[in-house]
Amino acid sequence: MKDRIASLPRGLYLIIDPEVAGGRPDEEIARQAIEGGARLVQLRDKQQEKGLQLPVARRLKEICAQAAVPLIINDHVDLALAVEADGVHVGQKDLPVSIVRRLMPSAIIGCSANNVEEALHAQADGASYVSVGRLFPTGSKADTRPATLDTLRAVKQAVHIPVAAIGGISEENIDAVLEAGADLVAVIGAVVAAPNVREAARRLAERISEHRQRSGQD
Amino acid sequence: MKDRIASLPRGLYLIIDPEVAGGRPDEEIARQAIEGGARLVQLRDKQQEKGLQLPVARRLKEICAQAAVPLIINDHVDLALAVEADGVHVGQKDLPVSIVRRLMPSAIIGCSANNVEEALHAQADGASYVSVGRLFPTGSKADTRPATLDTLRAVKQAVHIPVAAIGGISEENIDAVLEAGADLVAVIGAVVAAPNVREAARRLAERISEHRQRSGQD
Repeated sequence: MKDRIASLPRGLYLIIDPEVAGGRPDEEIARQAIEGGARLVQLRDKQQEKGLQLPVARRLKEICAQAAVPLIINDHVDLALAVEADGVHVGQKDLPVSIVRRLMPSAIIGCSANNVEEALHAQADGASYVSVGRLFPTGSKADTRPATLDTLRAVKQAVHIPVAAIGGISEENIDAVLEAGADLVAVIGAVVAAPNVREAARRLAERISEHRQRSGQD
Repeated sequence: MKDRIASLPRGLYLIIDPEVAGGRPDEEIARQAIEGGARLVQLRDKQQEKGLQLPVARRLKEICAQAAVPLIINDHVDLALAVEADGVHVGQKDLPVSIVRRLMPSAIIGCSANNVEEALHAQADGASYVSVGRLFPTGSKADTRPATLDTLRAVKQAVHIPVAAIGGISEENIDAVLEAGADLVAVIGAVVAAPNVREAARRLAERISEHRQRSGQD
């Protein structure tokens, strides 16, 4: 089945949360972040009902498809199917990965995992990647559980699928996150709330790319 | 396609809302209400995350399947697909019926409609039934819009699919609802919060059955 699974890039992973965007259009943020170097985009809207998220998700799908950047929908498999998104990201209280994999056999499926056990479980169930976080304080998702760089390191060593780091990541701490083994660096506020979205994304993407060159990954 | 669509019964429609159930197990309520005469069951949980709803939905599906009573899931097509429920009920802010129909071609799809325009739209999009309400004051769903028996009557005359009545329906007002043309009578509190669930369902089902005989529908 592996070859049917949508290919998962490495690098900067933009999470669009309308609560953080401060009223700026989601699709404009996505477009600029992709221009700056985002390789993966997620729509995460914990507030609005799905019928209201649908037009936003549709426009994001168009923008992402044009740039060959996969679009991931947080939580809602039905919304993802509706807009033919490339994948879904689920947390520990959402539908389990095994079920999501059955509903979307060839999709990118991400799963939040805050310890090695959860990460191995997600991998065994068919996750395409796991995310570890919130690593640093952040205002953007009240219900997140904290995690440390040590957790990130331990998860990275335990699984063979890519690992995303998330939570309060910025230019100040991105190097530590990359050193700990993050394959994907998920950002919200650092890009979505930046005065210049394209430039903020570009600087972070550059740091990732420098790290990958230094460590011989590119 | 019509013959592939799960057959939609008429009569008493039990909506299980864990908020109203007061801690009693959802599946026990469903079992007793079905024994009392409920012909359709819906799980409507506006609070809990889908991973937490999953085991409840699975057990309800089992109980309903044993009794050949269709199980409808409120809002979440993905949860419905996960437990192989017989259908989904969506509101005006959920995924549109046309999309739900694409995701579940042979399912029962219900749609809340509070005027003739919404009802005709839902019908054209492929809804299996529309529901009109809240008809009477109720404590169980804060975000509902009010509707009148006149609306119910007008919707019933406008569409050819079955019409469900919902919102504060009890023994006191069920006859008026039936006279206005309801094919399905959806109840929450009147059954779920009753001291004796089976008996409460039985009395309401009997009233429906008497009305159908009087009006020559049976």
